[in-house]
Amino acid sequence: MGQSRPADQAGLRRGNLALLVRTLREHGALSRAQLAVRSGLSKATVSSLVTDLETRGLVHDAGVSAGGQGRPGQLVGLRSASVCGIGIDVHVGHVGALVTDLAGEVLWQHRVICDVPGIGPERALDLLAELATDAIRQVEGRVGPPAGITVSVPGLVDTYAGVVTFSPRLRWRDVAVADGLAARTGLGLDTIAVDNDANLGAMAEVAGMDVTDLVYLTGDYGIGGGVIAGGRLVRGSIGFAGEIGHMAMDPLGPHCSCGRRGCWETQVGLGALLHACADPDDPVRDPTLDLDQRMRILRARAGQHDRRTLDALHQIGTALGLGVSILVNLLNPAVVVLGGYFAALPEWLVEPIRNQVVAHVLAPGAGGARVVGSRLGFTAATTGGALASLRRVLEDPTVVPPIQQQVDEEAPA
Amino acid sequence: MGQSRPADQAGLRRGNLALLVRTLREHGALSRAQLAVRSGLSKATVSSLVTDLETRGLVHDAGVSAGGQGRPGQLVGLRSASVCGIGIDVHVGHVGALVTDLAGEVLWQHRVICDVPGIGPERALDLLAELATDAIRQVEGRVGPPAGITVSVPGLVDTYAGVVTFSPRLRWRDVAVADGLAARTGLGLDTIAVDNDANLGAMAEVAGMDVTDLVYLTGDYGIGGGVIAGGRLVRGSIGFAGEIGHMAMDPLGPHCSCGRRGCWETQVGLGALLHACADPDDPVRDPTLDLDQRMRILRARAGQHDRRTLDALHQIGTALGLGVSILVNLLNPAVVVLGGYFAALPEWLVEPIRNQVVAHVLAPGAGGARVVGSRLGFTAATTGGALASLRRVLEDPTVVPPIQQQVDEEAPA
Repeated sequence: MGQSRPADQAGLRRGNLALLVRTLREHGALSRAQLAVRSGLSKATVSSLVTDLETRGLVHDAGVSAGGQGRPGQLVGLRSASVCGIGIDVHVGHVGALVTDLAGEVLWQHRVICDVPGIGPERALDLLAELATDAIRQVEGRVGPPAGITVSVPGLVDTYAGVVTFSPRLRWRDVAVADGLAARTGLGLDTIAVDNDANLGAMAEVAGMDVTDLVYLTGDYGIGGGVIAGGRLVRGSIGFAGEIGHMAMDPLGPHCSCGRRGCWETQVGLGALLHACADPDDPVRDPTLDLDQRMRILRARAGQHDRRTLDALHQIGTALGLGVSILVNLLNPAVVVLGGYFAALPEWLVEPIRNQVVAHVLAPGAGGARVVGSRLGFTAATTGGALASLRRVLEDPTVVPPIQQQVDEEAPA
Repeated sequence: MGQSRPADQAGLRRGNLALLVRTLREHGALSRAQLAVRSGLSKATVSSLVTDLETRGLVHDAGVSAGGQGRPGQLVGLRSASVCGIGIDVHVGHVGALVTDLAGEVLWQHRVICDVPGIGPERALDLLAELATDAIRQVEGRVGPPAGITVSVPGLVDTYAGVVTFSPRLRWRDVAVADGLAARTGLGLDTIAVDNDANLGAMAEVAGMDVTDLVYLTGDYGIGGGVIAGGRLVRGSIGFAGEIGHMAMDPLGPHCSCGRRGCWETQVGLGALLHACADPDDPVRDPTLDLDQRMRILRARAGQHDRRTLDALHQIGTALGLGVSILVNLLNPAVVVLGGYFAALPEWLVEPIRNQVVAHVLAPGAGGARVVGSRLGFTAATTGGALASLRRVLEDPTVVPPIQQQVDEEAPA
């Protein structure tokens, strides 16, 4: 409905280039004629645009179509190795990186255990810069240059400035992550983005699902929420939406890292789980061990019906369910995705959550809301970060410059 | 970004007609040249579209422009009396109607006190049909025909079918409101819509504000929430979003109409307030008195520093604030609008709410969220209903047929 002002020619062309790239990403290789039908553009326009994308190395010949109804035609395919996207995440106990190609395939991932609140933001930024440089070096030769780097952080992020405004769990206030990373790596500031971990996780999860309304929960020491409503991320008026970890659930509850009492994350955060299921000298409470490893130990104990572990998981699941029921009453999502550590333990968490949701949600059958464990686990935020980095190219393919040697060949000597 | 398939000609023309109507509604009368500049359409297209709108009686000559930079030109203005929109609302203790013209000016409103849960849905539908017929008769001659009627109901609504799925407060389950009203009034089913009261209230409130992220709370026996995020209403996956009255706030709290215990509305609904501030034989608890009148009595008592009234308002405000802080943490709205009975008592409710919000919201300064009383009070839902009815015309002016006498004049004898 409606009509905006006529776009300028360059903007229109950028939009059409983006449309072709997205169409190829969704449908796989297509002939120029098929691209014209799917995009609504003329065949002449499609041919010209495809040539442009070839110049930038974003598409290539992908064989001949197998026939079907039309004449066989030369297929155009996305060159998934043309660029890569990098996601970096910062947790309380580790930092991580993940690199994907344009098609979203994971090329490399790595995690470094460290006490992020303990080392302070400057040293943490050093570590992130090393990780970014390492990521680029690791995939060099296999894939084109990074379209961008997106850093995921648990807490309030000023995405416009690339600044972490406040992260109680990291003990960071007003940390200029984008500036700090650009200065340390030499990468352009326009290629570095910073976002909230739950927002990135939600974007990664919804990309693989056929739903428009989704709530994603980060299961970590802190708990964040990423909300997709009507197909779009809910950011709020100044970008601070999703701080569900600090819902006041119990005025007399334990003290929280934010300075308040009884926040939801004091009941369901990783700290609450570990405290409930193990003594301080237990390996699952050893911060020098990788989280995946500690989760495997817990899974094994739960599988062997260890009473303390099962009781702890039931307690966490019930408290989780009470908070989830608030989110479901308010947002009526099609699915609630349990991320982070929750994703390692769905067999024991989903049932108590569902019981609470059915008990407390007004809509019959909880309004159709499903509760599922994340497919991505602890990598949701880095996957979402890599995806967000690639979005720069998907929204404007001209950010990828024409390939130099082609320009050299064509230029007069 | 991107580009959809070329729209068909009729669809394109409808979209352009709608663009002109919205432009005139926003900016007031404009010359054809100004309309061309603001819409990005050619002058010839604008002239043809304006003629079409004249034929439908939607615009008229509005004098000559006062000059300024350009040549003086004949102004085109919206004919606000061309059509009207009707909103009807159903509460526990009354039903109401409100009629506006195309410009949103209120032409008539009326409220009938009645025990809606007591009389049952069939008799309530009779009453709504009488009210609708009365509304149309009352504005006849002053304004054109109704663009539509939108019925506001507290509870879960299947807007597609026009059915109230579940309203605990009204004690309605699967009530076919649109069908029932069409059968009783003879109005076309395509002109009758049914929606949740909080959604309609939120749309009415946001229409008068320069914000994209807003939470609207209905203050009534039940409490509902209407959420606008990024400029769009959050409906959820099957339209059941906003059921915040049933957030579980106290597992040992009072029994709720929904069958559960300790729902937020048992703490902050109108019933809770009246119970806390007056004995059963007090006039403020007399359901045969109009709510506005009862609120005036309460305001007078609070103004005279009556201890019981002030204590009750502080208790309600504090419990309200705790729930509001959950909404603000999750949604980061620019503004939280207190509707219904809350809007009659902002001097005593806003401060305890703000105190809780500042105490419990993670973002510094509560993420900029303001808490304000509604401008519309108990008429927000009917105002939103009238607006929603008019939206049919604003989105597609061709739903208004050409005026008959003009057609007669032009037709050969």
